[in-house]
Amino acid sequence: MACKHEERCDRARHIHRSYDIQPLRGGDHKKKEKILRAAVFRGAFAIQVEQIPDATILAPTDAVVQITHACICGTDLWPYRGQTPYQSGWQIGHEWMGIVEEIGSEVRTIKRGDRVIAPYDFCDGTCEFCRKGLDSACLQGGLWGFGHEGGQAEAIRARFADATLVVVPPSVEGDEALLKALLPLTDVMAAGHHAAVSAGVRPGGSVVVIGDGAVGLCGTLAAHRLGAERIIVLGHQPLRLALARQFGATDVVTSRGEQALPQVIEMTRGGADAILECVGTEETINLAVNMARPGGTVGFVGAPHGSGQVPLGRMFSSNIGVRGGLAPARAYLPELLAEVLAGRLDPSPVLDATVSLAEVASGYAAMDQRQAIKVMVRP
Amino acid sequence: MACKHEERCDRARHIHRSYDIQPLRGGDHKKKEKILRAAVFRGAFAIQVEQIPDATILAPTDAVVQITHACICGTDLWPYRGQTPYQSGWQIGHEWMGIVEEIGSEVRTIKRGDRVIAPYDFCDGTCEFCRKGLDSACLQGGLWGFGHEGGQAEAIRARFADATLVVVPPSVEGDEALLKALLPLTDVMAAGHHAAVSAGVRPGGSVVVIGDGAVGLCGTLAAHRLGAERIIVLGHQPLRLALARQFGATDVVTSRGEQALPQVIEMTRGGADAILECVGTEETINLAVNMARPGGTVGFVGAPHGSGQVPLGRMFSSNIGVRGGLAPARAYLPELLAEVLAGRLDPSPVLDATVSLAEVASGYAAMDQRQAIKVMVRP
Repeated sequence: MACKHEERCDRARHIHRSYDIQPLRGGDHKKKEKILRAAVFRGAFAIQVEQIPDATILAPTDAVVQITHACICGTDLWPYRGQTPYQSGWQIGHEWMGIVEEIGSEVRTIKRGDRVIAPYDFCDGTCEFCRKGLDSACLQGGLWGFGHEGGQAEAIRARFADATLVVVPPSVEGDEALLKALLPLTDVMAAGHHAAVSAGVRPGGSVVVIGDGAVGLCGTLAAHRLGAERIIVLGHQPLRLALARQFGATDVVTSRGEQALPQVIEMTRGGADAILECVGTEETINLAVNMARPGGTVGFVGAPHGSGQVPLGRMFSSNIGVRGGLAPARAYLPELLAEVLAGRLDPSPVLDATVSLAEVASGYAAMDQRQAIKVMVRP
Repeated sequence: MACKHEERCDRARHIHRSYDIQPLRGGDHKKKEKILRAAVFRGAFAIQVEQIPDATILAPTDAVVQITHACICGTDLWPYRGQTPYQSGWQIGHEWMGIVEEIGSEVRTIKRGDRVIAPYDFCDGTCEFCRKGLDSACLQGGLWGFGHEGGQAEAIRARFADATLVVVPPSVEGDEALLKALLPLTDVMAAGHHAAVSAGVRPGGSVVVIGDGAVGLCGTLAAHRLGAERIIVLGHQPLRLALARQFGATDVVTSRGEQALPQVIEMTRGGADAILECVGTEETINLAVNMARPGGTVGFVGAPHGSGQVPLGRMFSSNIGVRGGLAPARAYLPELLAEVLAGRLDPSPVLDATVSLAEVASGYAAMDQRQAIKVMVRP
C-alpha cells in the first residue's frame, strides 16, 4: 500500500525523471546512453534482456545502485512458468546487491560509493510493522519486480534507501567468495532463518526440514547455527542432500510424501520439536503438522499453494503451532551479515551456477529444469 | 495411551476392587451400600443418574475423592447431542473437585481429608510432556469420562493422584463463593487462559475474543488479567455480552460472521494483535486469522469442527501464527489457584445455574437450549 506521494511518483515516473546524473564509479558509458539493461518478463518462459530508461532518483529517500550481483529466485519461476499473474513488460528479480551511485536529498545513512545489500522487499523503516521488526508487512513496502524496479538489471532505483539498504564494509571488495556468501541473505537465507526462528529451533532440539531447495538448505544451515542437535532433511536429489549434510543435516529421508511420515515419527520417537516447511504445497504442510511432536511448531516459509486444508484436529489435540510467512529479511540482515563477515555462516554453496545478465534466460531454464539449485547473475 | 499396568487394571476393575474402605468425612451412609450415584450416558439426550460400583483404589498411585462440586461442560454437549461417539454406559463429566477419602500406598503429597481440585485431564506427572508443562499430551493421560471414571458423580477414583490433583488450602471450606470461583479452573478458565497465552496477549495489546460461551468469557477474563488494553468480544447473547464487559471487554460486536470482519478491522485499524478463537467452527477459525494484525497470533481452544480449511495465504503474507489446543490445565492450576485465592480472579459468574446430581439431566437440557452458560452440579 503506497502512500499518496509514492503513488503519484510512480504514475509520473517517466515525466519526473531527473537527468542530473552524478559522475559514476565505473560504467559511465552506460549512463551516457541514459538506458540500462534489465531482465524483463514478456510472458511464460520468456525473460528478455531489454534496454529500459535508466534508474534515477524519484523521491528524496531514493538511492540509485549499480548492481554487481543478483540471483534468480524460486519465486521468479512462478511468473516464468505462468503460474502467477505477471504483466508483460514488468522487470523481474528481487535479490541483489551493488554500489551506491547516487542518493536523494533526504538519504542520511547511505553514501555514494557504499556497497549495499538489499532485502527482497523494500520498506519505509518508520511504520508500525518496520518498528516491530516485521518489515515484510511494511505499510509502504513491496517486492522488487512485481511492477516495481527489478533486481536482475545493471542498476536500480532503491526506494527508502536508509530503511531498506544495509551497508557492507569495504573490506569485502575483491573477495568474491565472501560476496557470494552474502548474496543469499537478500532472500533465501533470511527465509531459512525465518523458518527456524518461527519454528522455535533451540539448542539440543530436533528439527525436520521439508524441502531440499535453496530455502530448505538455508533452513538446514539456520537450524544448525541455532544449535539443533538432530536435523532431518526430506528431499529427493542426491546432490542437494549431500549439500544438506554439509550444512548440518544429521539424517536425510528420501521417501516421498506419506511414506516419509512413519519414518520420521520412528526416527524421532514421536515427532520433531520444530518443522521447517520450505515447500508450501498442501501435502507438505500437512506432512509438517503430522511430523511435529506435541507442543512443537511448524515454521512455514514455502508460499502456500492449494486449498489451505491443514490437520487442525492434530494441531488441537497436540498443541502444534503453525507460524511463518514472508521473512522480515531487512530485520534479519544485520545479524546474518555479521555472521557471514565473521566466517560463521556461508550459504554460498546454494548458488551453484552463474550467468551474465545477457544469459539470464538460460539461468531461468536451468532452475526450471532443476539443473541448478540457484543461479547467480552478474550484470 | 495407558501403560500396560493401567490397561490391565482397567480391564480387571470390577475384579480387583477393594472393599477395605476407610471411615469417611461425612457421607458414610453411601459407602455402606458399596455403590455411588453417577451421571451415565445412555444415548443422545439421555443422561441418567445411576447406581454404579463404588470408587476405589485400583493402583497404588490412585486416590478416591468424594466430589463436592462438579460442572457440565460445553464438551459434554457433543455426546449429549449425539455429535461425538460415546458409549452407552460410560460415565460423563470431567470438571470436579472434592475431599480425599482414601489414598493408594504410593501417594505422597495428597492426604485423606485434603480438599483437591482436578484438571479435566489426568496425567502421570513424569512423562516428557508433563515435565514440559504440556500435561494435556501426557503419555498415560486421558480425560475423565470418555470411558474413564466420570466427574458428575458422588465420588471418583482419581488416577495419578500426586501428579493430577492440586490441594486447596482448608481456609476455603464454608466459603461457597470462593469454592465456586475455583471450580472453573478445572477446565474453562484454563482453556481461556490457554487461548490468551497461546495468542501472546501482553500488556497494552489489542485482543479479539470470538465466542461468548464459558470459554470465551474466561478468555476475556484472562486477556484482561494479562493486561490487554482493548478487548473486543464477538457474541450474540446480551446477558453473556454484559458478563463479557464485567470481565474486562472494552467493546462487543454482535454482527454475525463475515459482517463482523470489516467492523473489527475498522475498530482495530487493521486487525488485533491477539485473537482468542473459542468456538472451533471453520467459519470462526477463518474469521480469527482474518481479524489478526500482521505479526499477530490466533490462540485457538475451540475444538475444531469442519474441513480444516484455513486462510494459509493470509497467514503467510502477514505472518499470522495459529497455536493452541487442549489446555495444559494441570500446569496452569497452581498459578490460577493462587490468583483466585488472592481475590484477583473470579470466573464464578460463568456458573449461572446449579443443579443437584439427581437433576443433572435438566442441567444438560438448560445448556443445550442455551438457557444457561454453564451449570454447576452439587452431588
